[in-house]
Amino acid sequence: MHSFGRAIAAVLVASALAVSGAHAQTPNRPQLAAAIKAEHSANVKRLRDWIAFPTIAAEKINVDKGADYMRALLLDAGFQQAKVIPTSGVPGVFATLDAGAPTTLGIYFMYDVKQYDPKEWSSPPLEGRIVDRPEGRAMMGRGAVNQKGPEMAFLSAVRAFKQTGRKLPVNIVLVAEGEEEIASPNFHQVIANPEVLAAMSKAVGVFIPMAGQEPNGATSIDLGAKGAIELQLIAAGEQSGRGPAKDIHSSLMAVVESPAWRLVKALDTLVADDGYTPAIDGWFENVKPLTARQKQLIAGGVSKSDEAEIKKQLGIRQWIRNEDFLTSSYRLAQQPTVNIQGLVGGYTGPGGKTILPGRAEAKIDLRLVPDMTKDEAVAKLKAHLAKRGFDDIIVNVSGGYGPTETDENSLLVKSQIATLKRAGVPYSLSPRLAGSWPGVTFTGPPLKLPAVGFGLGTGGAAHAPNEWYLITARNPKVAGFDQAAMFYVDYFYDLARVAGQAKR
Amino acid sequence: MHSFGRAIAAVLVASALAVSGAHAQTPNRPQLAAAIKAEHSANVKRLRDWIAFPTIAAEKINVDKGADYMRALLLDAGFQQAKVIPTSGVPGVFATLDAGAPTTLGIYFMYDVKQYDPKEWSSPPLEGRIVDRPEGRAMMGRGAVNQKGPEMAFLSAVRAFKQTGRKLPVNIVLVAEGEEEIASPNFHQVIANPEVLAAMSKAVGVFIPMAGQEPNGATSIDLGAKGAIELQLIAAGEQSGRGPAKDIHSSLMAVVESPAWRLVKALDTLVADDGYTPAIDGWFENVKPLTARQKQLIAGGVSKSDEAEIKKQLGIRQWIRNEDFLTSSYRLAQQPTVNIQGLVGGYTGPGGKTILPGRAEAKIDLRLVPDMTKDEAVAKLKAHLAKRGFDDIIVNVSGGYGPTETDENSLLVKSQIATLKRAGVPYSLSPRLAGSWPGVTFTGPPLKLPAVGFGLGTGGAAHAPNEWYLITARNPKVAGFDQAAMFYVDYFYDLARVAGQAKR
Repeated sequence: MHSFGRAIAAVLVASALAVSGAHAQTPNRPQLAAAIKAEHSANVKRLRDWIAFPTIAAEKINVDKGADYMRALLLDAGFQQAKVIPTSGVPGVFATLDAGAPTTLGIYFMYDVKQYDPKEWSSPPLEGRIVDRPEGRAMMGRGAVNQKGPEMAFLSAVRAFKQTGRKLPVNIVLVAEGEEEIASPNFHQVIANPEVLAAMSKAVGVFIPMAGQEPNGATSIDLGAKGAIELQLIAAGEQSGRGPAKDIHSSLMAVVESPAWRLVKALDTLVADDGYTPAIDGWFENVKPLTARQKQLIAGGVSKSDEAEIKKQLGIRQWIRNEDFLTSSYRLAQQPTVNIQGLVGGYTGPGGKTILPGRAEAKIDLRLVPDMTKDEAVAKLKAHLAKRGFDDIIVNVSGGYGPTETDENSLLVKSQIATLKRAGVPYSLSPRLAGSWPGVTFTGPPLKLPAVGFGLGTGGAAHAPNEWYLITARNPKVAGFDQAAMFYVDYFYDLARVAGQAKR
Repeated sequence: MHSFGRAIAAVLVASALAVSGAHAQTPNRPQLAAAIKAEHSANVKRLRDWIAFPTIAAEKINVDKGADYMRALLLDAGFQQAKVIPTSGVPGVFATLDAGAPTTLGIYFMYDVKQYDPKEWSSPPLEGRIVDRPEGRAMMGRGAVNQKGPEMAFLSAVRAFKQTGRKLPVNIVLVAEGEEEIASPNFHQVIANPEVLAAMSKAVGVFIPMAGQEPNGATSIDLGAKGAIELQLIAAGEQSGRGPAKDIHSSLMAVVESPAWRLVKALDTLVADDGYTPAIDGWFENVKPLTARQKQLIAGGVSKSDEAEIKKQLGIRQWIRNEDFLTSSYRLAQQPTVNIQGLVGGYTGPGGKTILPGRAEAKIDLRLVPDMTKDEAVAKLKAHLAKRGFDDIIVNVSGGYGPTETDENSLLVKSQIATLKRAGVPYSLSPRLAGSWPGVTFTGPPLKLPAVGFGLGTGGAAHAPNEWYLITARNPKVAGFDQAAMFYVDYFYDLARVAGQAKR
């Protein structure tokens, strides 16, 4: 769910609080950079091989071996230990690199990828071919930018220390999951593992490697994101005992309860008559308004965005309620949503067919804002339906987590800003993505750590055909693979330095 | 839509007001029967060849050549003239056989068939293979019973006169359409043709050849049927200019109108909160209650039906509102319905996908009872939606017609009862099918003719895989192909006789 959401934020909340460059802080930087350069072809091959082995939780593809593959990659890059952590679903991976440093960095990886349809691709989605793009030479393949490319850049940074026989300035604790694309239904189990929890508690914060640079080089640090719950609402005659167990002739609508109408009537209660405002009982109880600072950050982004271009991309002529761009941008961050992803039931082909379907399903996602929680939202939805007599409607929660928020004054974010400034990269702070990622697993109890997305480089078409990740940049303002890796090397030193200053 | 609806009526309104046999009224009956027997293999081949050439309006298959095929079959059977009648859609066919008789019989054919999926069939749906069934030897193929088999039996009866060099005792005016399975959107254009209208005006009534005998040999004369309108309600961002033109990321639900929610909100207004009762403004204005006689006929059928077996077949544990069987049987005939045939929009695969769909569609059928009309229903639906601000919802009416009713005391029905009695076939009168057929084209203005379904023989799985039509019966109470044909021969004489008596 992550990078796609980020792509939208990148559109809506524009970048570039330009900052001046800073002085180098990385000892023996040329040797480390040379190591990364020397390993370039091998690293590209590692990424290509990883893309060839996709884990797709929704389709149960490589859900048993993906974690082993991830574990092997981590050990090979220089982690001292890595183990597979079983869950009720696809297993996670936990790895540590103890450099004997006073500061520990937490890292979150997803090793799964989104579904794909090879017919829609111009190059086979598992081949990781190098293609020529306006941005430069890029690797095309499922998972290239979401998230294997940025993660491989991070691993290349770690490997550079092994290559040059040097110690990292920080320790690393890494957790990886294989169910991010189905809304992380079991990731909390990975964190709840006592060994993982103990190791992760030592971290100053956590980030997921990202590659969201815009053509002008600008990037953003996403301080927060909405939570997301994916669920299916299903009305089935077999369940209620009133409707039919299978599709029957439509004339029987006169004497048999229709599951499709049952679903429509249940759905109708979930949002107000404006077709927009959530109407689930108590839904806004714990909704916290945006702070003045959050609004300031949003307004700063809006002022630099091209509203007309965004509307054109989305194929819309107006925002909801015909509101202006700034109001809509606040709303994008502020509003919890009840969205219909899909409707499916009965006859779905061309024209009609005279049946009364035995089953109808709505695919729903709920986006949550602070301080809503996943458990609260699911419980409220179920209570709402039950109170209105819809207890025959099946609520199948397939994944989800609450919203996440990180303080811009945290040590994690301050150290990241330091590296961005050193690299001369323009950046913005995005207070809350409308999209979602399971950062709450870190920012929520028991860890309560800062958690953000962070990195240089670029790519596109996450979740879409022809996904790509930039390997060699044509534009000097944007990082290619080696520069993205080197950026993490620099960051390790900035984090160690900023953490050291904080302790003094 | 027809035979499938009839199959249900045959289940719900049981048969068998047993009547005694009667004396033969067909001159030189043995010679006519011998002619049909002699032509048996050729007739079966004609049916098989016809099945191999399906016209499917929904899929635009053979929509140009099906009428030519129909025309050739009619001429070959003995009609003196047959012509293709163009319409805005698939053309109709008009044929006459003038025997110089004082009485003219109207016949309605459909030459199109329902869609099929070969994967679901045990024998290729266009091969018309002979299969062995408990009922006897049957032909399996799309259109076998709905409606090519019964129609070919009728043509065999007509052909017997040509074979034996004899004149029919009645004239025949026949109209055929190629869009019955998409709810006859243009059939009225065939009837409105001045030549067709003039010829059909001379008929005493119209029937469609049917094959609905039950294992005990019983059949029914369907005096009426509900009307049916098929339509699609479509919410599309492109149409409203508010929602997105295509699927976008689901996080944008916070700021972009959702066509899927728009559709749900519009649908919700069409039926009451019970998920059952139509709530379209003025919907019941012209609904006429069942007469005492109609209720009597329904009650007669109900008393002989196995409610538990019917419920088992439908996969339900209770009727709507938990009503008893008799009340439900009245309701089946009486209630106009607004049915959802299907829902489709956005992501329809397994689990979920984080999109906000640009388009959502509900496939709807409306069943109408006397004295509702198609034009009235469509106008009221559109006005209802417009009044509530849903004028962006596209209402795509793909077909339909009003309800049909025929008087049991009409000459047509009385002559049919005479032939059933003569054949010793138990029968019932069904006042109103819950299913639909375009009989209103004949029973409504300007023709105002009696119109029913009529015939012997049997078959099954209309609209379903492995559709079949009985060729050679194992059970002497049920007619095979030759007996079904001979039944129509007998009927021609009974009609001539009953009509002659009426004139005296």
